[in-house]
Amino acid sequence: MGTQKCDLLVHSAAQLCVIPPQEGGPQRGARLGDLGLIEDGAVAIAAGRVVAVGPSREVRPHFDATREIDARGKVVCPGFVDPHTHLVWMGDRAAEFEQRIAGATYMEIMAAGGGIMSTVRATRDASVDELVAAMRPRLDRMLAHGTTTVEVKTGYGLETAAELRQLEAIVALDRIHPVTLVPTFLGAHAVPTEYRDCPAAYVDGVIHEMLPAVADKSRALGLPRLPFCDVFCEDGAFDLAQSRRILEAARALGFPLKIHVDEFATLGGARLAVELGATSADHLVTTPPEDIAALGASQTMAVSLPCTPFGLGYTAYTPARALLEAGAALALATDCNPGTAWNESMSFVIALACRYLRITPAQALVAATLNAAFAIGLGERVGSLAPGYAGDLLLLDVPDYRHLGYRFGVNPVALVVKDGKVVV
Amino acid sequence: MGTQKCDLLVHSAAQLCVIPPQEGGPQRGARLGDLGLIEDGAVAIAAGRVVAVGPSREVRPHFDATREIDARGKVVCPGFVDPHTHLVWMGDRAAEFEQRIAGATYMEIMAAGGGIMSTVRATRDASVDELVAAMRPRLDRMLAHGTTTVEVKTGYGLETAAELRQLEAIVALDRIHPVTLVPTFLGAHAVPTEYRDCPAAYVDGVIHEMLPAVADKSRALGLPRLPFCDVFCEDGAFDLAQSRRILEAARALGFPLKIHVDEFATLGGARLAVELGATSADHLVTTPPEDIAALGASQTMAVSLPCTPFGLGYTAYTPARALLEAGAALALATDCNPGTAWNESMSFVIALACRYLRITPAQALVAATLNAAFAIGLGERVGSLAPGYAGDLLLLDVPDYRHLGYRFGVNPVALVVKDGKVVV
Repeated sequence: MGTQKCDLLVHSAAQLCVIPPQEGGPQRGARLGDLGLIEDGAVAIAAGRVVAVGPSREVRPHFDATREIDARGKVVCPGFVDPHTHLVWMGDRAAEFEQRIAGATYMEIMAAGGGIMSTVRATRDASVDELVAAMRPRLDRMLAHGTTTVEVKTGYGLETAAELRQLEAIVALDRIHPVTLVPTFLGAHAVPTEYRDCPAAYVDGVIHEMLPAVADKSRALGLPRLPFCDVFCEDGAFDLAQSRRILEAARALGFPLKIHVDEFATLGGARLAVELGATSADHLVTTPPEDIAALGASQTMAVSLPCTPFGLGYTAYTPARALLEAGAALALATDCNPGTAWNESMSFVIALACRYLRITPAQALVAATLNAAFAIGLGERVGSLAPGYAGDLLLLDVPDYRHLGYRFGVNPVALVVKDGKVVV
Repeated sequence: MGTQKCDLLVHSAAQLCVIPPQEGGPQRGARLGDLGLIEDGAVAIAAGRVVAVGPSREVRPHFDATREIDARGKVVCPGFVDPHTHLVWMGDRAAEFEQRIAGATYMEIMAAGGGIMSTVRATRDASVDELVAAMRPRLDRMLAHGTTTVEVKTGYGLETAAELRQLEAIVALDRIHPVTLVPTFLGAHAVPTEYRDCPAAYVDGVIHEMLPAVADKSRALGLPRLPFCDVFCEDGAFDLAQSRRILEAARALGFPLKIHVDEFATLGGARLAVELGATSADHLVTTPPEDIAALGASQTMAVSLPCTPFGLGYTAYTPARALLEAGAALALATDCNPGTAWNESMSFVIALACRYLRITPAQALVAATLNAAFAIGLGERVGSLAPGYAGDLLLLDVPDYRHLGYRFGVNPVALVVKDGKVVV
């Protein structure tokens, strides 16, 4: 039997986590956590994609690799996918963090003109170049912590031109940075101060001005598909009826949908996500049993953002076990943002999820890779090391994948490969 | 006015945190959190010690430095001091971590022969060289995360020879590693399995055999003073009377004292610590109001270990604000250990303390430097950048010290100086 050329062969991994899709989709319910674990594992990558994976003794003889990496004593897994971030912002809110320690709640700070609006004021007038420059070190840290694909939302403009600049900055950074950026339009992140007395007019503006402008801009930028459209469905942001209007209009224009639901109040957003066929429903802290059941019976990905309650010093987290018992597919994300959760590390999210969502390290790892990829519509391309998937992988400086949950506070990522190339 | 030679001059820091001692001691009660903040700050180090600190324009003209570091846009603070760790262990307990997620409690796992005893079995027969080799990467990570002085406890031997090897390993690593290691004897960490039916005999052994042997070994190793003697005062470990016997015997031999108290059960250990004049009382989660008052009126440092409840996925933390209101001096530590909290990062401890102890970033920073140094008897030598203190400092890649609490999951340390030398 002859050998085949490949660009990269990673071999001798103590554990190699393939993370196979199930029936071509994400891992769901009790089946979440199938790592497809291979001891002394190897993976071969050619033209940026996985061409073979298996035990080293079976894979190595078949390949003549341009570069080999010995992963002895280390764990190999797919690059992390972070499916919910707000990475395009200027300024910071360290002072507000101190206020919260003194007792102010997130919604109180927001009602007083702080919160999202203070970031909007800092971000609104920034140029595309300034936005790219502000995002870049955050994205570098994400990559150093193993994230190879990240969703990024607009939503600190809240007026058409500023929202479009944020979209343009996301697309521009995607084209020059190793990490893949997936854009989401979040014009409905907050009702800006100038519309405080007439939120309906802002909703009209999102629907009639922003959505068509984002669709036009996306085509002008040459995007292969429209960005996601997302809404912050929450007391003090957009109510259920407003959220429905925006998302229905977006769907009619061909936008795939996401929705922030049940972070603080329970408005019924999870069922709306299911009804509209949203790709994901995100946050899911105060979600009631009937909405958990609806998610479990749907194709909508349940995305948990445990850094947000952690960042706020709260103790209520996503009822992840109930979601899994209902049959839902669960993904994890950082929610990286300047208000509640400035954290770039997905391995920290895994450590947090094991402790406060009470899911196993295997479940958390799948939720941070394959399922996270399905949460942004890329589950057939990234998030797994099955043949045909992108050659995005990590070498973790730990002897067992469970160290991802067991340990915390320190970055376990020793090496990052993106599309078959070593980038960290 | 002439210039003076110095080895290192760090200048132009956006913020320089001096962290001055108060009346020669730690910062206490409502006064905790005095950073002595200098904008555009500089610090000069000669012969390993701080010789001047102040605004750059005042300090720079007076020094002719062998090396200068421009800290523009960064924060400079003293190296972190980690005053409570269990860094000498072999093996790991990732499997036990999974059991806990499934619902087993820490004390249930310990009663079933897991917990501390599983690490004791893995560690007991290790040679000094093996112990040093196991500790070293952990200590390297600590240094990379800004810790320049660390306390390390024995306590995974629980028999004289093994305890002495752990002490020897701590001293050996101190002599070859940039981080300063401060040893603590914790023979009373658990009652080993072979004494399960006669714990009193184990206590007798600690008192009559181990303590004198540790004193002899310390002299033979040339230590400048005896190590601390510590006891785990807790249900399932050592009760109050046993703790008192051991600590009184240790004190009679000249050992300075520490004690683990109120981690799960409330046995009165905090008042015992005060009564015996212990240097610190550590954990302090279930501490009742009268014991908080006793600590507040004492010279005993209150050491909080927030990674332990976090590591266990619990939500009860040290009542830090009540301790401060009572006038106590508060310090923070990682408690780095293989069972409940494998984390090497003090900046993560600060982020956790701001959220769940509800203390400000300034209070947490003092608790992680100056007060932590006082918790291990070194408060007059390290933990501050006041003149005369050791030249141990950090450059943090953040524009404001409050980012230490505000952000999490990522290491903010850009550069580490130990005794005036750049080591990271």
